[in-house]
Amino acid sequence: MATVAIVGAGFMGSAMAWPLADNGHSVRLVGTPLDAEIIRQCRAEGAHPRLRRPLPAGVRPCFAEELGEALAGADIVVSGVNSRGVRWLGSALAPHLRPTQLLLAITKGLEVGADGALVILPDVLAAELPASLREPLGMAAVGGPCIAGELAGRRDTRVIFGARDLGVAERLAAACRTPYYRVTTTADLVALEVCAALKNAYAVAVGVASGLLERRGGPDAAGAQLHNAAAAMFGQACAEMRRLLEALGLTAAFAAGLPGAGDLYVTCQGGRTVRLGRLLGLGHPPEEARAALRGETLEGLEIVAVMARALPALAARGRLGAEELPLLRGLIGLIAEGRSADWFLATSLAA
Amino acid sequence: MATVAIVGAGFMGSAMAWPLADNGHSVRLVGTPLDAEIIRQCRAEGAHPRLRRPLPAGVRPCFAEELGEALAGADIVVSGVNSRGVRWLGSALAPHLRPTQLLLAITKGLEVGADGALVILPDVLAAELPASLREPLGMAAVGGPCIAGELAGRRDTRVIFGARDLGVAERLAAACRTPYYRVTTTADLVALEVCAALKNAYAVAVGVASGLLERRGGPDAAGAQLHNAAAAMFGQACAEMRRLLEALGLTAAFAAGLPGAGDLYVTCQGGRTVRLGRLLGLGHPPEEARAALRGETLEGLEIVAVMARALPALAARGRLGAEELPLLRGLIGLIAEGRSADWFLATSLAA
Repeated sequence: MATVAIVGAGFMGSAMAWPLADNGHSVRLVGTPLDAEIIRQCRAEGAHPRLRRPLPAGVRPCFAEELGEALAGADIVVSGVNSRGVRWLGSALAPHLRPTQLLLAITKGLEVGADGALVILPDVLAAELPASLREPLGMAAVGGPCIAGELAGRRDTRVIFGARDLGVAERLAAACRTPYYRVTTTADLVALEVCAALKNAYAVAVGVASGLLERRGGPDAAGAQLHNAAAAMFGQACAEMRRLLEALGLTAAFAAGLPGAGDLYVTCQGGRTVRLGRLLGLGHPPEEARAALRGETLEGLEIVAVMARALPALAARGRLGAEELPLLRGLIGLIAEGRSADWFLATSLAA
Repeated sequence: MATVAIVGAGFMGSAMAWPLADNGHSVRLVGTPLDAEIIRQCRAEGAHPRLRRPLPAGVRPCFAEELGEALAGADIVVSGVNSRGVRWLGSALAPHLRPTQLLLAITKGLEVGADGALVILPDVLAAELPASLREPLGMAAVGGPCIAGELAGRRDTRVIFGARDLGVAERLAAACRTPYYRVTTTADLVALEVCAALKNAYAVAVGVASGLLERRGGPDAAGAQLHNAAAAMFGQACAEMRRLLEALGLTAAFAAGLPGAGDLYVTCQGGRTVRLGRLLGLGHPPEEARAALRGETLEGLEIVAVMARALPALAARGRLGAEELPLLRGLIGLIAEGRSADWFLATSLAA
């Protein structure tokens, strides 16, 4: 049995405590400086306030100040921060990590370099580490559909761990796998991360359909909604993920699988990303939608901004035509260029 | 402007009258012998009783007995019958069709030959026609997400017309295309039809998750549902559609697009196929579920039975491994072999 330090006590980081504890590992759930109240409640009540469940036996909640202690003796470190916390986490881990430890990153997101190239978050984190650690440290990331509350509820879930070194993914999968948390592995870490990030952009598009429906007065007298339009966006989203993976030289088949269609499907079942889309569909400008959802990490907005910078670079390198990915370009128009939801619908459904 | 005869006055056949009439075509909506009451009401009230809308101007409802008259002078014939009516329609059309007419088939389904090879419904229909008609007659079929009630409500919809002769698909698309009914075309008719049929099998799987959730007492105290499991099935469904298309030598990219993921998404939004899955998930044997849904065409059951016969043939020809497509094999176990929903969940989510 291993010792695991999860850093970040929000939904997804904390939820990983369930399969890890069920496998008999000793788990230290370490809050970030923003998670102090969560950790206090975990300690006082033995239950996680956001996940609304008693913590499994064998999970020790720790404050950010105890990070060094928590990492000492850990075999596995789980990065459970959100996309804005990745740099902080890298620098916070840097003094404590040892090259024999394994790191599992659950943060979803993408960044874009000055040259327009996409950068996955595990590499953003690694860049904060001393060079002596970067190479030897085994890092993997998680893709596929996983609502944290269901994982903590031990509900059947299937995901993929990806690592450039497949052996690292396999070792981490072996530590995490339970009868309810099924884990397969891939060596195409970048494809996995690209899907995990893109699905948050495309789920916004599906959400826009529900907002547009409301704005047009809801279902008509005969009950017609906008499922056809939402489904057209869903299908187009998968086609564009496939095309983008292909343009990036990655495993295009992931689009029609757990990392693409599967994760997009679960994201469309509710949550902040479709709520964001609904607000945009109702006609609220992005800044109003952002204000209405303040306190939530809106990865959808972030990834659209990232792709707005990445697409011209892909076009310049001849990887992508200037007219390709009309749905993603529609999202860029809607979110970054102040276009209307009606314009977006017309554009995104154009052949 | 053309004259169009739609044969079959159920949901989808009738809904095609809206874009056709909006394009100024003269439309004859011809009921099958089973549609007499629908046609009577269309005539008496000027509204379609199932679609619950006034028929557009320029649509003339006709009884089955008027088929010959309705087909005379028609430039386009739309096959709007369900999968069980295809042979009837072929033989009913045979005496009246002329080689210059175009035929658009909206029926979803697949059959399997004695050799285990899949047969698309347009070919089943064509087999009922005299040999002198089969070659010259231009036939196309429709794929992609389209709820009939939304099409009749003129809600934004995007579909694909497929024909072995792309020119035929283009001509029919030009006749049907409106601002709310966007049509693109493909020459891979078979891939389009395979996706349209398979999505009804895979939507059953997604429905099973909702039935299992109910049987387990619904969401738990913290609100956890089975979205992760449903999404895992959705993602696996797309991956298996891709693999099947590939094994059949067809356009595998359709799985991550409108015909695969898009059509599966809209099918999962409700309707008889997911209701069937829910009943199976609740533990009802297939015959009970069929009885509870009597009167509905359960394409999901039909296509699973078809695939149960097609998979061994594909394996025998070396196109598919015996262990591939675990979700489809799980559906075959559940529906054709009396396995339980719990067995199905465990099998279908296995790596």
